Amino acid sequence: MTYCLAIKVNEGLVFASDSRTNAGLDHVSTYSKMHTFAWPGKRMFVLLSAGNLATTQAVAKQLRADAQNPQAESLLSVATVDAAADYVGRVSAAIQRSQAERDTANTNFEATFIFGGQIAGQASSIFLIYPQGNYIHESTEHPFLQIGEIKYGKPILDRVILPGTPLEIAGRCALVSLNSTIRSNLTVGPPIELMFMPDNDLTASRHLSLGEDDAFYRSISDTWSDGLRQALNRLPPFPWEGATPRQAQFVQQSGPIEPMA
Amino acid sequence: MTYCLAIKVNEGLVFASDSRTNAGLDHVSTYSKMHTFAWPGKRMFVLLSAGNLATTQAVAKQLRADAQNPQAESLLSVATVDAAADYVGRVSAAIQRSQAERDTANTNFEATFIFGGQIAGQASSIFLIYPQGNYIHESTEHPFLQIGEIKYGKPILDRVILPGTPLEIAGRCALVSLNSTIRSNLTVGPPIELMFMPDNDLTASRHLSLGEDDAFYRSISDTWSDGLRQALNRLPPFPWEGATPRQAQFVQQSGPIEPMA
Repeated sequence: MTYCLAIKVNEGLVFASDSRTNAGLDHVSTYSKMHTFAWPGKRMFVLLSAGNLATTQAVAKQLRADAQNPQAESLLSVATVDAAADYVGRVSAAIQRSQAERDTANTNFEATFIFGGQIAGQASSIFLIYPQGNYIHESTEHPFLQIGEIKYGKPILDRVILPGTPLEIAGRCALVSLNSTIRSNLTVGPPIELMFMPDNDLTASRHLSLGEDDAFYRSISDTWSDGLRQALNRLPPFPWEGATPRQAQFVQQSGPIEPMA
Repeated sequence: MTYCLAIKVNEGLVFASDSRTNAGLDHVSTYSKMHTFAWPGKRMFVLLSAGNLATTQAVAKQLRADAQNPQAESLLSVATVDAAADYVGRVSAAIQRSQAERDTANTNFEATFIFGGQIAGQASSIFLIYPQGNYIHESTEHPFLQIGEIKYGKPILDRVILPGTPLEIAGRCALVSLNSTIRSNLTVGPPIELMFMPDNDLTASRHLSLGEDDAFYRSISDTWSDGLRQALNRLPPFPWEGATPRQAQFVQQSGPIEPMA
C-alpha cells in the first residue's frame, strides 16, 4: 500500500509521500514514490505514485525518456499544467493497456497518480490521475488530494487545510497526516519525502527525506503526540465532572505477570 | 456504514456509537446502534452493532426475549462475560444462517458486534464478535476495539489510549474519534451515543446521546479543532524557517468570482 498527498494553498504546493511497497505480506520493499521533473526557472513537476510498482516505474521512465526527445510530446513540450496531466494520464493508460494485452492471469496493472507543478508565468495546479487516465483537480473547498491509504490521515487535513494556510503549516500538516497513517497502518512506511514548491520559485530546493530515526521527524511525531494530549486535556468536562475535568497523565502502566490460580 | 468503538481502561469501559444507517445512497436513516442490557447492581452489558440492520435488530430482540425467559440461556443466565460473548456470537450466527437459508439473491446478512460489560464480582471485558460468531477480546497493548468505518478515528486512539488513561479522558477521546470520522465520512452520522461503565458501578447512569446541535458536542468539536491548530503551531520549524516558525491564522479566504478573459 501507499499514502501520498498534495496540498495547494495560495502560497504554492506541497507534495508528500511514504516509501513502502509490498507485493504480498512477505515481499516488502522501500521505493521512492516521488518523481521530480525540474527545469529550474522554467517549469517544474512532481509525480506521486500508488498502485502497481512496475506500472509506476514504467510511467516515470517514459516521462523522462520523452523529456529527452525533442520530437516527442513531453513534460517539456506541453503548454500548460493541465496538458501535462492529460499527457501523464495517456502515458499511464497506454502502459497499463500494453501490459494487460500480454497478460494471461487477470493481473491488476492499475496505478493512480498525484501530479502537479507550475510552468513559469502560469498558475500552479495539482491533479489526481485515475488508472483510466482521466483526472480531477483540487478545488478551493477541497484544496488537497490523496491517493492510497487515505483515511487515517484525512481528518487533520479536513480540519486544518484552507487556501489561506501558510505553506510551511501545510507541510507540517502533511507530515502529521503521514506520521499518523504510519503509526496506524503497517503498509505505509518511512522514509517520508516532502517537497515544497512555493509559487514562482521553480527551484526544487526544498525537498526533505525523513527516515524513522531522523531527529526532525521524531521531534514532529513526539511534539504532535504531546499537543494532542494537551488538546484532549482542554476539552470541556462531562456533566458529572464539575468544573475541573480530570487530566490525563498518559503514563504507560505495565502490570505484573499474573500467576495461575 | 457505521462507526462504533469500545475502550477498556483500568477504571472501566467506554462505549460509543454513531447512528447513521443506509441501504444504498438514497435510503439513509437514523437508528441507535447501542443496546444496553442492565440488571442494576448485578450485571450490565452493552452491544454495539454494525452490518445488516435487520440482522442486528433481530439479534438485539432475541437477546431481550431470552432474558425474559427463565428457561433459556440468556445474558442473565450466563456465568461470565466470556460466556455472554459466546452466546451472542451463537445467536448472531444462527440468525444469519436462518436468513441465508431462505434467500434467493446472495444477500449479505452479515453483522459485526462489539460486546462488553461486567458481572458483579468479576472483571469487565470487551469483545469484537465477527459475523461467524467467533470473537476476540481487547488486550493491554490494544485496549480498544472498533467496528465499521474504523480508519479515520484510529490515529487518535493509537496515540492516546493506554490502560492507565482516566475513564473520562477515554470518553473524550472516543468523542473526538467519532467527531473526526463524521467530519470526514458522510456514512457516519450523529447522534453520537456514549456510555460509561465504571468498574463495579453497574448502574448505567452515565449515558449521553449527543445530536449535531447539542451544545456540549459542538463545544467538543470546536475546542478540539482549536487544540489541533495550537498543536500544529507548536511543531518544530523546517530548516529554512529559522527559530521562529510561521504560525497559522486559519482564516478562510474566499476569492472573488473570476471574469472570463
